[in-house]
Amino acid sequence: MKQKHNFIPDWYEGETPIGTFRALFKWHDLNAFKHPNRGFYDLLRDTFQLSDQDFNNPVLCLDPVEEKNPSNLDRAHIHEIEQIVGKQNVFTDTYTRLRTSYGAGMIDALRLRDHIIENINDCTAAPRTADEIKRIIKYCDSNRISLTVYGGGSTVTRGVEAPKGGMCLDMSLHMKKVLDFNEVNQTITVQPGIYGPELEDILNHAPERLGAKDRYTCGHFPQSFEHSSIGGWVVTRGAGQNSTYYGKIEDLVISQEYVTPVGVFRTLDHPRAATGPDFDQIMIGSEGCFGVLTAVTLRVYMYRPEHTRRFSFLFKSWKDAVNAYREIMQGEFGFPSVFRLSDPEETDTAMRIYHIHDSPADTALKIFGYQPMRRCLLLGTADGDLAFTRLVKRKVNHVCRQHGAFILSPFKVTQKWEHTRFTDPYMREDLMDYGIVIDTLECTVTWDQLHKVHTQVRQFVKKRPKTICMTHISHAYPQGANLYFIFVIQYQEINDYLTLQYGILDEIQSSGAAMSHHHGIGKQTAPWLEGQIGVEWMQLMHALKQHFDPNNIMNPGGTLGLDISEEQKNKRWSFT
Amino acid sequence: MKQKHNFIPDWYEGETPIGTFRALFKWHDLNAFKHPNRGFYDLLRDTFQLSDQDFNNPVLCLDPVEEKNPSNLDRAHIHEIEQIVGKQNVFTDTYTRLRTSYGAGMIDALRLRDHIIENINDCTAAPRTADEIKRIIKYCDSNRISLTVYGGGSTVTRGVEAPKGGMCLDMSLHMKKVLDFNEVNQTITVQPGIYGPELEDILNHAPERLGAKDRYTCGHFPQSFEHSSIGGWVVTRGAGQNSTYYGKIEDLVISQEYVTPVGVFRTLDHPRAATGPDFDQIMIGSEGCFGVLTAVTLRVYMYRPEHTRRFSFLFKSWKDAVNAYREIMQGEFGFPSVFRLSDPEETDTAMRIYHIHDSPADTALKIFGYQPMRRCLLLGTADGDLAFTRLVKRKVNHVCRQHGAFILSPFKVTQKWEHTRFTDPYMREDLMDYGIVIDTLECTVTWDQLHKVHTQVRQFVKKRPKTICMTHISHAYPQGANLYFIFVIQYQEINDYLTLQYGILDEIQSSGAAMSHHHGIGKQTAPWLEGQIGVEWMQLMHALKQHFDPNNIMNPGGTLGLDISEEQKNKRWSFT
Repeated sequence: MKQKHNFIPDWYEGETPIGTFRALFKWHDLNAFKHPNRGFYDLLRDTFQLSDQDFNNPVLCLDPVEEKNPSNLDRAHIHEIEQIVGKQNVFTDTYTRLRTSYGAGMIDALRLRDHIIENINDCTAAPRTADEIKRIIKYCDSNRISLTVYGGGSTVTRGVEAPKGGMCLDMSLHMKKVLDFNEVNQTITVQPGIYGPELEDILNHAPERLGAKDRYTCGHFPQSFEHSSIGGWVVTRGAGQNSTYYGKIEDLVISQEYVTPVGVFRTLDHPRAATGPDFDQIMIGSEGCFGVLTAVTLRVYMYRPEHTRRFSFLFKSWKDAVNAYREIMQGEFGFPSVFRLSDPEETDTAMRIYHIHDSPADTALKIFGYQPMRRCLLLGTADGDLAFTRLVKRKVNHVCRQHGAFILSPFKVTQKWEHTRFTDPYMREDLMDYGIVIDTLECTVTWDQLHKVHTQVRQFVKKRPKTICMTHISHAYPQGANLYFIFVIQYQEINDYLTLQYGILDEIQSSGAAMSHHHGIGKQTAPWLEGQIGVEWMQLMHALKQHFDPNNIMNPGGTLGLDISEEQKNKRWSFT
Repeated sequence: MKQKHNFIPDWYEGETPIGTFRALFKWHDLNAFKHPNRGFYDLLRDTFQLSDQDFNNPVLCLDPVEEKNPSNLDRAHIHEIEQIVGKQNVFTDTYTRLRTSYGAGMIDALRLRDHIIENINDCTAAPRTADEIKRIIKYCDSNRISLTVYGGGSTVTRGVEAPKGGMCLDMSLHMKKVLDFNEVNQTITVQPGIYGPELEDILNHAPERLGAKDRYTCGHFPQSFEHSSIGGWVVTRGAGQNSTYYGKIEDLVISQEYVTPVGVFRTLDHPRAATGPDFDQIMIGSEGCFGVLTAVTLRVYMYRPEHTRRFSFLFKSWKDAVNAYREIMQGEFGFPSVFRLSDPEETDTAMRIYHIHDSPADTALKIFGYQPMRRCLLLGTADGDLAFTRLVKRKVNHVCRQHGAFILSPFKVTQKWEHTRFTDPYMREDLMDYGIVIDTLECTVTWDQLHKVHTQVRQFVKKRPKTICMTHISHAYPQGANLYFIFVIQYQEINDYLTLQYGILDEIQSSGAAMSHHHGIGKQTAPWLEGQIGVEWMQLMHALKQHFDPNNIMNPGGTLGLDISEEQKNKRWSFT
């Protein structure tokens, strides 16, 4: 019989000064926290066979980043950049350069905890205008200085790491203005450095802030919403938690302007055309390798949160749940907005965390046939016109019940999820303080691939002892969906983590999925890219690279596999 | 007071033998006819101030195409091609080569009527497999023989004309098989030579023909449906009359396979991904300049015609109608399927043709404020799930009534339109027999451009005496729509027509619209392309051309403006 106990670790909630390693791996807001609750803590202790004593000595990494990594860029170059953007907008201190080179990936956090500083840029400059960006690119191209772009620092694919050093453009300081708002066309044009909350606030308050008749929403809410930039969404092909209704970023972008080494490249605002190849989709996802995004026009939607309808269900099996999920996406009555289906392990984990596990409600559910490690949780919302959201909810209800689902809506499961949708990642810090890593990998599947990919990845992960592997589908289309894997392990050193991560990437690849649905490729997944898209596709990417960036100054060093090193190819980067 | 009269021209309904010029410019089925009715005839007679006597001497062009244009291709080359595809699949007679070089554009019909044969290919071969296509392309590339591709011959932009002669691949004979059907993913993979009705029939009868559980539709119904190929839809970025719901062809394509001079290029089936640039959208719309489409996977929809709901309305003004139309597209309750709004001149023309003009009903409409040359007709349908189509119809009704529309639904206007949706172009032959040209040009606009483009084009056209100019919107998006212009003129010689056509293209360009919404660019609109998309975009297109087709054998001679001649640039082609 389980022992009741009251111990809870003393999760760190003290100050995290700017300049420390902790400030760099902490999720977004230095003053915000979300700690594992009792249910989650118990699950971790049980899974990793730990005792309360193991949670007594956190490793906090509150030591400051020291000035041991001098810039390799000639002082003369830095002086020229200062002439362009102003001296106050040029930074060569190690902390800033590290901040604009590492992202929010687990490998970044692990390296920061080990004080490993590598592949950082030599100088970070914050341009104030597109014209300044033009001048910097021209200067860097003439002098063969590499160039990366920093937006919100939320990359989880080593997207802005700078193995070749050089300049980094920090778009988050000044390049965040609204350039145009067109209410007739329902579009907004912004500079790329603006963050999600600022854009959303402007649109929600469009009458007050833009002189509009109505209120709008951008409809794009990635988990990194609070600290990711619109530019980052575009160049990595991001998605938001409501993208099943609002569309992925490639569906939201109407037109774009890039400054490239060979000139300014603009696409046009017409919603569709038959004027030859369309180039929006080769700039979206170019991950900084072709040029710097300087303006983007996005479609916007009416902001009507009062129309939102919520639903949640429990299915008896993963198979039933996936069948219902697919039937909804192919039902031709409109798409849900949030639409999130958890596999049995994720469902059971959620039930433990929310204290439903072993409760009277759980007993009742089991009697009705909703068994642990078989049952699956589906939650979601509908957005849009009121009659439309009601219709979608009614149809979703109907399909789910036909597949034997139990209606959970009265328990407000979706509302609970919404409450923590952007804050869960704060728990990463707490876990890592005690040597536990929680990380994610994701991919896209066609419907007929889904079970194969899910089974194959799980089989691989579960071969490893004491490893949690949760999966959900959170973005769907009539022809397929994403699969999002969350794994939790105890680690001793970085390679424990990498062995698992690289192994999962191998399984994703060999089972036929696309290597990413919305995280992008960066330098981390680059070694797997050609294996998925093929040699001819890769050659075409090289042709485009050659066209836009003949001197390979734009985000060089392996992003998208364009100039991948032998070390990267072998799926191993050594750590300095 | 108008004189009543009973005269109707003796519209030609005799035989049209294969081998004649008439067989080449006749719309699709040589045994099908649709003649102008009394209302239309009266309109033409009034507009052009003609008498019944002017309709007594039709020019039918029933003379055969003679063998006066020998192939310029070396016999040795033709022999090699025969080795690949079989002698029975190689054609060098003038009639076949003319048939596979000209399309269904007005300039093609005018030239055929004048017996002008120019820019035709030297040899037409019908490959049986993708492998044969690979071998032909390899041979042609080695020997610098130009290559065009013929599908359904429905181009209205001189898309497959062969100024440099060479080989033409006729995909319509053998390359029309279904390669795969995936009911779980709701996709079908076909060879590109299959025509609309055959694909639709297979999908409608999926249980019988594909062993499926349900019936499906491709959802793509261009006016050329009966004689256009799926390959043509894809490489020109086509649209169908129901595309506002089902999506334009670029929304329907899931993946593609092209044979190019540098190898086979395939895209993947994942519905979305974040794996770098996406290349589907640069192959869609490539108009034969990068490679030959050999397989395409399309999404399919459930076939449920019993769910279709129909509606029609009359508005008091173009402004009211456009406002309602836009509000519906931005209403977030789902899109209509057919959604067609006629401007005042098209509305009045329709009312004359359907004998409503000057009828008691017309008198009543006028009393209620629906005045001639101000009122506008909107018709449409909703497709999809039954509850969804009912919702869309209800919401459309609501919005239209708010904008002062009169509900015409009881008069079954939409049903009447559906009845003739694919047959109206047969009237072109009748009119041209008496020196009257009816032709179309189309473009895409953002909502805020719409009135400017419409006004500017109409002002230009109406400066010309005795010219009918009708406009409608038939494809729409939340951010804009197409504008489709139909003009009717009397002509003496080809240049009468060209002067007007080129002038309209100038107006479309200068008013800011995209040069085409779904006809494509071909060689006809190529001189205007760079002016719309810009130099940088054109340079990128050249880089892609250089990558896929370094020897410029794929559809050379000006398509997409890639190797445009001075003569073309000056917007004039002389006619041999």
